[in-house]
Amino acid sequence: MRTFKLILSYDGSRYRGWQRLGNTDNTIQAKVEDTLSRLLAQPVLVQGSGRTDAGVHAAGQVCSFHADTDKQVDVMLTELRKHLPGDIGALSLEEADPRFHARLLAKEKTYVYRIWNSDMPNVFERKYLYCFPAPLDLTAMRKAAELLVGTHDFAAFCSRAGGKKSTVRTLRELRIQRFDEEIRIFFTGDGFLYNMVRILTGTLLEVGLHRLSPARIPELFASGTRAQAGFTVPPHGLCLLNVEY
Amino acid sequence: MRTFKLILSYDGSRYRGWQRLGNTDNTIQAKVEDTLSRLLAQPVLVQGSGRTDAGVHAAGQVCSFHADTDKQVDVMLTELRKHLPGDIGALSLEEADPRFHARLLAKEKTYVYRIWNSDMPNVFERKYLYCFPAPLDLTAMRKAAELLVGTHDFAAFCSRAGGKKSTVRTLRELRIQRFDEEIRIFFTGDGFLYNMVRILTGTLLEVGLHRLSPARIPELFASGTRAQAGFTVPPHGLCLLNVEY
Repeated sequence: MRTFKLILSYDGSRYRGWQRLGNTDNTIQAKVEDTLSRLLAQPVLVQGSGRTDAGVHAAGQVCSFHADTDKQVDVMLTELRKHLPGDIGALSLEEADPRFHARLLAKEKTYVYRIWNSDMPNVFERKYLYCFPAPLDLTAMRKAAELLVGTHDFAAFCSRAGGKKSTVRTLRELRIQRFDEEIRIFFTGDGFLYNMVRILTGTLLEVGLHRLSPARIPELFASGTRAQAGFTVPPHGLCLLNVEY
Repeated sequence: MRTFKLILSYDGSRYRGWQRLGNTDNTIQAKVEDTLSRLLAQPVLVQGSGRTDAGVHAAGQVCSFHADTDKQVDVMLTELRKHLPGDIGALSLEEADPRFHARLLAKEKTYVYRIWNSDMPNVFERKYLYCFPAPLDLTAMRKAAELLVGTHDFAAFCSRAGGKKSTVRTLRELRIQRFDEEIRIFFTGDGFLYNMVRILTGTLLEVGLHRLSPARIPELFASGTRAQAGFTVPPHGLCLLNVEY
């Protein structure tokens, strides 16, 4: 049995997210598992670094899997590239330590949320950008970003909280950059709760619109209730960029 | 009756090209005409600077139309942006001289053909790039490009030639640029024959593969027969960038 580390990019537009839901379903995990199982003539289970929701993209999703094969890694990669659908790309494949596990050993992830801050249409990147043409106060947004960074209980910034699991996470970096009409918000942290990046982005947008003052961020953390934070931005602006181990 | 100049961008992936084919059809011209006709409550005929084939994109297709309306131009533009499908964008709209005609007065057009010269998958731009991973000799391609520029009979570089119409055109500029894994070929000229940009690109690729020597370009012009030139690259790498008047 050999262990492999596979890095994928995908356009999540037409998928119901990363995580397999049934036997034959329209998820990225199912496509990758089914392709690998066919190529290696054995059932292959693929572990992603984490789920991405329906419509969310990835430029560097890391996966691990075990397989009993003597195929060379570069042959496997070529075959995988040939057989995966055009919206799922195998960026790299390497043999990994037998203990490698894409989810359990992930130390840090980086997401980007892309906002098209203009009413000028962008037909070519429309599937990867959230169109939000209202003027935004980036200085206020950056002030709020500074208050969001750090180790906090992010319960107010997640959907479906309330279980027994901890909602404390460390957001190591939150960077807001403008590239002409586009605003990119980069989030780096040790882990993200369900919808956390999308709710943080919605909260930052409300700050940018002056509907919420950056000074209220500590209150949001203290309240711990979802209703206090901003709206959940749509999935298609979100992309998982990188996972560190 | 007022005359308007409209600049459009479109992702041509799901269309049968620019030119209207019937009453209700899946062409860009039909979508734009139908939308304008509804918004202005009158039949509107839209003239494009030229046809683009099925699958070809535009970042600056120029159109003209006449309409009997007293709507303000910026109101019309906002409505148009709201009602056009997401893959057709109205970049600008202005009132034009009554004699303005997008096709007849076009002086110069610029196209770009985009090649993804790598076997690393690019899922996000796959609809706008022709994937051609073989190593290419750009120096040879640029030598051929120099010989293609100028006023020539391009009969060998067009499909469906042989009518009475002249196949002489002036290719003013042909620029080949590499941006990491991507090669962009820019074509500027006074007019382009049917499939001309795609056949010129295929010819340049054959030069880049050393299947055709740049020195043979003059022979191709002299032969005037399509079979002598390179293959026709697929439409989805092609984009109409700009039209000058």
